[in-house]
Amino acid sequence: MTDVGIDAIEIWTGKLKLDLPNTFAPAKGEDPEKYTKGLGLNASSFPDTYEDIVTMGANAAHRLMEHEGLTPEDIGRIDVATESSFDNSKPVSTYIAGCLERVYEGKFSHANKGERKFACLAGTQSIDDAYNWIKSGRNRGRSALVIATDTALYARNDPGEATQGAGAVAMLISEDPDLVSLSTEQGYGSADETDFLKPNQQFPSVDGKRSVQVYLARMREALEDFEGVAGRTHTDDFAYIPFHTPFPGMVRKAALFGYRHMIRDTSMEDDLAGEIGRQPREEAFDSEGDFEEALREYMDGLKRTDAYQEWYARVVDPTLTISREVGNWYTGSVHLARASALKTAFEEGRELAGERLLVGSYGSGAQAEIHAETVQPGWEEKIADLTIDEGIERRYDLDYDEYERVHDVHNHDIESDGDGEIEEFTAPESEFVFDGWGRMGERKYRFVE
Amino acid sequence: MTDVGIDAIEIWTGKLKLDLPNTFAPAKGEDPEKYTKGLGLNASSFPDTYEDIVTMGANAAHRLMEHEGLTPEDIGRIDVATESSFDNSKPVSTYIAGCLERVYEGKFSHANKGERKFACLAGTQSIDDAYNWIKSGRNRGRSALVIATDTALYARNDPGEATQGAGAVAMLISEDPDLVSLSTEQGYGSADETDFLKPNQQFPSVDGKRSVQVYLARMREALEDFEGVAGRTHTDDFAYIPFHTPFPGMVRKAALFGYRHMIRDTSMEDDLAGEIGRQPREEAFDSEGDFEEALREYMDGLKRTDAYQEWYARVVDPTLTISREVGNWYTGSVHLARASALKTAFEEGRELAGERLLVGSYGSGAQAEIHAETVQPGWEEKIADLTIDEGIERRYDLDYDEYERVHDVHNHDIESDGDGEIEEFTAPESEFVFDGWGRMGERKYRFVE
Repeated sequence: MTDVGIDAIEIWTGKLKLDLPNTFAPAKGEDPEKYTKGLGLNASSFPDTYEDIVTMGANAAHRLMEHEGLTPEDIGRIDVATESSFDNSKPVSTYIAGCLERVYEGKFSHANKGERKFACLAGTQSIDDAYNWIKSGRNRGRSALVIATDTALYARNDPGEATQGAGAVAMLISEDPDLVSLSTEQGYGSADETDFLKPNQQFPSVDGKRSVQVYLARMREALEDFEGVAGRTHTDDFAYIPFHTPFPGMVRKAALFGYRHMIRDTSMEDDLAGEIGRQPREEAFDSEGDFEEALREYMDGLKRTDAYQEWYARVVDPTLTISREVGNWYTGSVHLARASALKTAFEEGRELAGERLLVGSYGSGAQAEIHAETVQPGWEEKIADLTIDEGIERRYDLDYDEYERVHDVHNHDIESDGDGEIEEFTAPESEFVFDGWGRMGERKYRFVE
Repeated sequence: MTDVGIDAIEIWTGKLKLDLPNTFAPAKGEDPEKYTKGLGLNASSFPDTYEDIVTMGANAAHRLMEHEGLTPEDIGRIDVATESSFDNSKPVSTYIAGCLERVYEGKFSHANKGERKFACLAGTQSIDDAYNWIKSGRNRGRSALVIATDTALYARNDPGEATQGAGAVAMLISEDPDLVSLSTEQGYGSADETDFLKPNQQFPSVDGKRSVQVYLARMREALEDFEGVAGRTHTDDFAYIPFHTPFPGMVRKAALFGYRHMIRDTSMEDDLAGEIGRQPREEAFDSEGDFEEALREYMDGLKRTDAYQEWYARVVDPTLTISREVGNWYTGSVHLARASALKTAFEEGRELAGERLLVGSYGSGAQAEIHAETVQPGWEEKIADLTIDEGIERRYDLDYDEYERVHDVHNHDIESDGDGEIEEFTAPESEFVFDGWGRMGERKYRFVE
């Protein structure tokens, strides 16, 4: 059967920028390097007053359809992945389809629309569902539109405030894809965890320390499950390894764990043994504490080896380029990581067709999913179409007072006093915008030429 | 390739009962027949104080696993469909898996868990995703658990209050299923509609009149789309036609529209022409108003024909048996309709293997999906396992004052004054119960032996 995978991608960033070292850090009285070096973030994208998950998702999807020359009839399925939904019943995909129908003559009348929720994981789950839908023979020649859209906002002064972000990634899932093909091989690591929740609330409750542990534990289980299906992974199997990126510092941790796993019982472990010893094996220790201490020591050493640093710089660091400038986009985040990697390769003029990516997705609550993708011959043309650099560049740079005011605008618990309270910071152009509430409390939208 | 479909099903009703003619109608000063004849409902199921979407879903799934002799390792996918979710990030499936792991030794560590939202449609969408997952070859011999669970509550004195309900349907999707097999043929009717919403609120805002129109319009589009793939449908093609059932009166309307569509341009239309004329064709009328008036007249006549009444009594009415006693279960509703039909056939000793069902699912917002299912040889044994009759029978019959108090308990906007405010009405036994809140606002659960 034909290959199925991601045929094209478009990224829409929220149109405001919160500069972390130059605006946020001074206002908080913090060292700027806490953000740039600790978290690995330079800025967050933030939605302008007229932006939300629907406008960002619709704008990404619109651009994607324009690039690809698609009409609504070409689309048989629209799934939106989000954890920023504002309705407990009506899915965001219906709003986005309604927006798109304003600018196309055709309708999505026979497309299956839906919405998936699992913290930051649901974008990948939606790609997987679309893949299965095509593979099972139900698509009637049509493609699926998967849109990962989130406003990843935290309560003011929450420790997560510095990792905010807002944006949407639209992906077209098709037969004979031009970007990457997927396979049936997947690995899962999943457990009922209380690390990050939004119980009847817009902004998350986070146990930060637990969240990091759970991310690493579920990723390990998923990698082992993946290897059970696809065979052992090695550090040289993959051109890039895009991870879910709540902030680049998290990926630095995960990459080290992954590297340690991949070199265990290989000649690479032997080659490094002279420098840092062999990996501690649990059975050689009397207590768990001793084992963990030895492991920490080994990891500290491993991190400093030339072998690891060269691998990290080549395989993982290029996945973080976009995230560093836009923050966490929740469901879109791992798809930004893939795009960052391919964009780097494109800019370096690297030959990538036929090479493989290992994609590590994650959602709190908690579940990791790992799968491999194969870069397709048409990838360069599709990556050349990306407009994210201009999007990042043209954002309005908020001062701290403006940031505080626009945060309130997006806070569902703060009622607006009416019109004119806060002006938009940017002028919409050729895009969908929020247009106020309807009589049943529904959000309304229009297209600004 | 092997057949894929629903292998087994279990239904868990909320453990309280609100009697509509005898308790609700007198308290409202209404004619009891407004409910029993108008809506077609005798009672609503209501959750006891310790029940919610997690306990009901986990209890249905637990029973299903026990009947089928399953362990967690047999399950590769758990999808929960709901529009009653209480967390914007963490999916209900993780809570349910956490419950089940309390009573099984194994873990669902490598199962893909998720949550789908599209009003009342997401249960069927989740079955379709599970079908595709197996058909695409990703299941590694494992089955999927699909759980449709909702507390379909309305604000007090809302017109929808009489159509409330609460319960869960758990379904096992497998290769070589014993109950019904599905096919790749599906029809969709979908549009961005403002008929029923829950914008940042627990209880819905409903435009009742619009909601009925939208249900009928989307069903028609879905049927036409289905026929485009599967060929014309006829009234004698299907043993039963289970529809989404917000209340049986809605299905009475939909069935009449479906029947009119199916007999158009057939000998049945000719046979009835002497009695009620031929169906009005839009092109024969000068104005839309005249056409619609003629259509109404034709439908009134059609409804009274022996042919229609015999068909409705045989093909549609048996799908409403459970709904009449439990109300609207949102995502579970159409699956109650299928179960009602099969239970009726079983009780009548009818031979059904090889016969087909036409299943019409619907979600406000709005989208209809129509597909056919083929009853499998093992169906009788699986239907014999259903425990829903005992569940309905043993519910505690609330008086009106009790109803008012327990409605408040389930209202997220009403803070509890603390313990002892309201006692549970029933004693839990061999089931999961809500066990209070954790430090991050998470809901906690335990199993009562």
